[in-house]
Amino acid sequence: MSVEFRVDPARYRHWRVDYDGPVATVTMDTDEHGGLVPGYELKLNSYDLGVDIELYDITQRLRFEHPEVAAVVLTSGKDKIFCAGANIRMLAASPHHHKVNFCKFTNETRNGIEDATANSGQTWIAALNGTASGGGYELALACEHIMLVDDRSSAVSLPELPLLGVLPGTGGLTRVVDKRHVRRDLADYFSTRPEGVGGKKAAAWRLVDEVVPRTAWDQTVKARARERADTGQRAPDAQGVTLTPLAKDRSADAIRYRYVGATLDPARGVAEITIEGPQDDPPTDTAGLHAQGDQFWTLAMTRELDDLILDLRTNEPELGTWVLRTQGDPEKVLAHDRLLCETDTGTPEDWLPKEITGYLKRTLKRLDVTSRSLIALIEPGSCFAGSLLELALAADRSFQLAGTREEDDPDTEPATITIGQMNLGPLPMANDLTRLQTRFLGDDKALAEAEQNQQQKLEAEAAEHLGLVTFAPDDIDWADEVRIAVEERNSFSPDALSGLEANYRFAGPETLETKIFGRLSAWQNWIFTRPNASGPDGALRKFGTGQRADFDRKRV
Amino acid sequence: MSVEFRVDPARYRHWRVDYDGPVATVTMDTDEHGGLVPGYELKLNSYDLGVDIELYDITQRLRFEHPEVAAVVLTSGKDKIFCAGANIRMLAASPHHHKVNFCKFTNETRNGIEDATANSGQTWIAALNGTASGGGYELALACEHIMLVDDRSSAVSLPELPLLGVLPGTGGLTRVVDKRHVRRDLADYFSTRPEGVGGKKAAAWRLVDEVVPRTAWDQTVKARARERADTGQRAPDAQGVTLTPLAKDRSADAIRYRYVGATLDPARGVAEITIEGPQDDPPTDTAGLHAQGDQFWTLAMTRELDDLILDLRTNEPELGTWVLRTQGDPEKVLAHDRLLCETDTGTPEDWLPKEITGYLKRTLKRLDVTSRSLIALIEPGSCFAGSLLELALAADRSFQLAGTREEDDPDTEPATITIGQMNLGPLPMANDLTRLQTRFLGDDKALAEAEQNQQQKLEAEAAEHLGLVTFAPDDIDWADEVRIAVEERNSFSPDALSGLEANYRFAGPETLETKIFGRLSAWQNWIFTRPNASGPDGALRKFGTGQRADFDRKRV
Repeated sequence: MSVEFRVDPARYRHWRVDYDGPVATVTMDTDEHGGLVPGYELKLNSYDLGVDIELYDITQRLRFEHPEVAAVVLTSGKDKIFCAGANIRMLAASPHHHKVNFCKFTNETRNGIEDATANSGQTWIAALNGTASGGGYELALACEHIMLVDDRSSAVSLPELPLLGVLPGTGGLTRVVDKRHVRRDLADYFSTRPEGVGGKKAAAWRLVDEVVPRTAWDQTVKARARERADTGQRAPDAQGVTLTPLAKDRSADAIRYRYVGATLDPARGVAEITIEGPQDDPPTDTAGLHAQGDQFWTLAMTRELDDLILDLRTNEPELGTWVLRTQGDPEKVLAHDRLLCETDTGTPEDWLPKEITGYLKRTLKRLDVTSRSLIALIEPGSCFAGSLLELALAADRSFQLAGTREEDDPDTEPATITIGQMNLGPLPMANDLTRLQTRFLGDDKALAEAEQNQQQKLEAEAAEHLGLVTFAPDDIDWADEVRIAVEERNSFSPDALSGLEANYRFAGPETLETKIFGRLSAWQNWIFTRPNASGPDGALRKFGTGQRADFDRKRV
Repeated sequence: MSVEFRVDPARYRHWRVDYDGPVATVTMDTDEHGGLVPGYELKLNSYDLGVDIELYDITQRLRFEHPEVAAVVLTSGKDKIFCAGANIRMLAASPHHHKVNFCKFTNETRNGIEDATANSGQTWIAALNGTASGGGYELALACEHIMLVDDRSSAVSLPELPLLGVLPGTGGLTRVVDKRHVRRDLADYFSTRPEGVGGKKAAAWRLVDEVVPRTAWDQTVKARARERADTGQRAPDAQGVTLTPLAKDRSADAIRYRYVGATLDPARGVAEITIEGPQDDPPTDTAGLHAQGDQFWTLAMTRELDDLILDLRTNEPELGTWVLRTQGDPEKVLAHDRLLCETDTGTPEDWLPKEITGYLKRTLKRLDVTSRSLIALIEPGSCFAGSLLELALAADRSFQLAGTREEDDPDTEPATITIGQMNLGPLPMANDLTRLQTRFLGDDKALAEAEQNQQQKLEAEAAEHLGLVTFAPDDIDWADEVRIAVEERNSFSPDALSGLEANYRFAGPETLETKIFGRLSAWQNWIFTRPNASGPDGALRKFGTGQRADFDRKRV
């Protein structure tokens, strides 16, 4: 079954969104019978990938279609339960790669919620009108403010360890101690209690920000939302930009959007991805940008790339290498970048360029945490400049053709790359460094030299000399070198490659995000594979059977 | 088979150490037939746990017995090969928990080498007189300066991924990019080439610091050692302290040293560890400290605790919970701490107190990365003060008895804990924070309040109020609460507990060390469990058979 990430808000099955001026209320109310695949019921507001795909769509539309919204209340449409977390039967029945992919996507959506609070002036408030357990509490942890109803039964909990023998899979452990600063011994105790902690103790331990009696609930939630909205930075009178349905042709061997395309080659284990630059010059000002809306090249291309990454990650696990190419006029890419960078002056009217850049940032981060080998090919006719140069900088290796090809038109210009404004700050990685800074970690001289060459069209030799590309073969060697690199990649252990890339891509400082994707996810991957969780007698498989798991007690 | 970590230098099978004033030369020359267990030969200077146990002993004796040494040259006694890394047949035949434990111990020894360079003025120089591959190169990476002979055949390499389908297991990936600042795309390429990189390219890519022709080899190695020795901070005329054989009684259900003891309870999955404080007051000055040598309480106790941790980790994997108690006079512990802290004035004559404190620091770090649940019990007659309070702060949970027990002598004083100098800086964790700072991460007020109460004997209520202990039950509740906590721990998935603890114990900033133990080791654990590595057709099992591994190509 192929998973579809494009959704039409008119057809949401699990969520409602209500707008009241600067406050939006996002209500989770999962349809028990709306699971992505048969075999489980989404009881108690438990979720599967399909539920989370709708949530991701909501977060994106809030940012683009509702610039007037400054506070988002996340709550539940069920009685007494906020959210029971990921559906256990779904998890227990899923193969390993689906579990890992599911956790990765849900993590990205929760990071996006934090990003909206931090960078878009849309502050998320978790209004827990009932128990939030496991992934339900982790969803709350992604919000800026957590309110819990104080009714002697509602609690927050992370019951994964005691009930399922796995870890909370969407950042819970990291956020509890590193974001909310719950003391580590209390966090330990909390995470071993299936029933969790409620009431004043939950607030005293910092698991939530406040507990509110049911009698004062509605009024207090409204008040908190209003307070956040009043201090927010959004644009109350701005017009949103509609995210129109994304056109896409999908067959077994190709995926095609307007600017982004991929051919799929299962025999070689490769997806060949090409991104086209803009055909036209950008509009001259923000008004023109608003007029183009979601047809503005950067936004249109980013939406397509985002969907492609999710599609390939989920539906094509055996395509282990993604080859990245671009095609077009580097000047036009840089002109589009300039419009975004220079009109983003931080005033509320300019919300759109900032949103577009932020979306591109998140999409490139998605690429960084993708467990596929990334190889960038920089050839004549390509446009690896500014925002698109980030693709080459995100790649595990890059090849830039020195000179041109013998069979090329004699007027063909050699391939160039260009460092632009977008490479110098607006698109940080999860480690909070730019991809250039990460590349030249600990080598300030090389970094300064690269930055001094911004706006220069750099041919292969210069780019290689500056350390911006890995290899610069000429026409004679190109085909063989690239072929060998791609074939060789497909001959290695896919698991070891994922581990290698996860370590090399994130040199330098660590953040909540790198901890979640690097440390926590790696532990979770390990635990998921272990018989103690996923074996026939493992806790995940025994859950709900009334039988106890049978553990191999050796500590590793 | 029980692994023994105590070794007698007179019986080293795999190493030689030569002393020449301020320069020591450590030569690896493994005995092919000296493997710890039958079934493999230690060819090409490959190593197993037994080889590494001797190396650890060398690093410890260099620090305590040879204060005059300021530069350590690490080299090989074989022709053309420095070290081929961990023995593959040994790895392939080992159960998962042994592989993980082996990697952990070798990591700790390499971190200790870096610590000697950074904190003891003993600078390690890797003199690669032949190829260093895999763990052999990782050993070099732990040194401050790497020299490689330039003879057209010697190279450095990390062939684990292409040959074995696993990751380098002792920090290689982290050190390549985060310590040596090799560019990530070059690092990626390097780590996929079984033959590695030698000659000038190795130096240009920063994989080594210099390449030296064979004709100039001996002389250049000598010169580098001399340069480092000349700028070092060691004490040329100081007398070392001999580490005499550690007395130990070991049976199936108990381990007993002079100050440290443990009873082993396989039925409950528990090791009950008790550490006794000093019986006497410390000597009054450094001269007295030197006179006591390795009988000085802190050093003697630390050696015992170190050996106990290693013994239990390796030989008792099913004892998943360690209960930590202390017994003795808190004042005497604090007095010993004071002697160490106050005589460590940074002058070369005072090298011993600094070494003792540094050893305690490393031993407590070993406890932190131990995959066992740690529960501290603070009872009347205990001495959780200063250096020993760190045990309670390292624990996942602590219980302090409020008041005394009904059956106690009426003169019994209630249990107290005391914050001393040792808790405020000299014993940082791997994240470079003190255990108090980690505990109160993000809560500066609580941290300040705790620190203001230093030198106060804090009874249970005060300690709980300050957040220094998890729970403070009284005599009525104590037995049940403790019993439930311990029993419950033994009912959970051991894998999930390891993951939980690895995440909660290291809140806050990340360092090379936390990256190695948190991120890299977690990935390696995962990869080790995967059929692509350890299954019957996995790369680790197929190595040397002439057959190719058969990979499940799904990327996870």
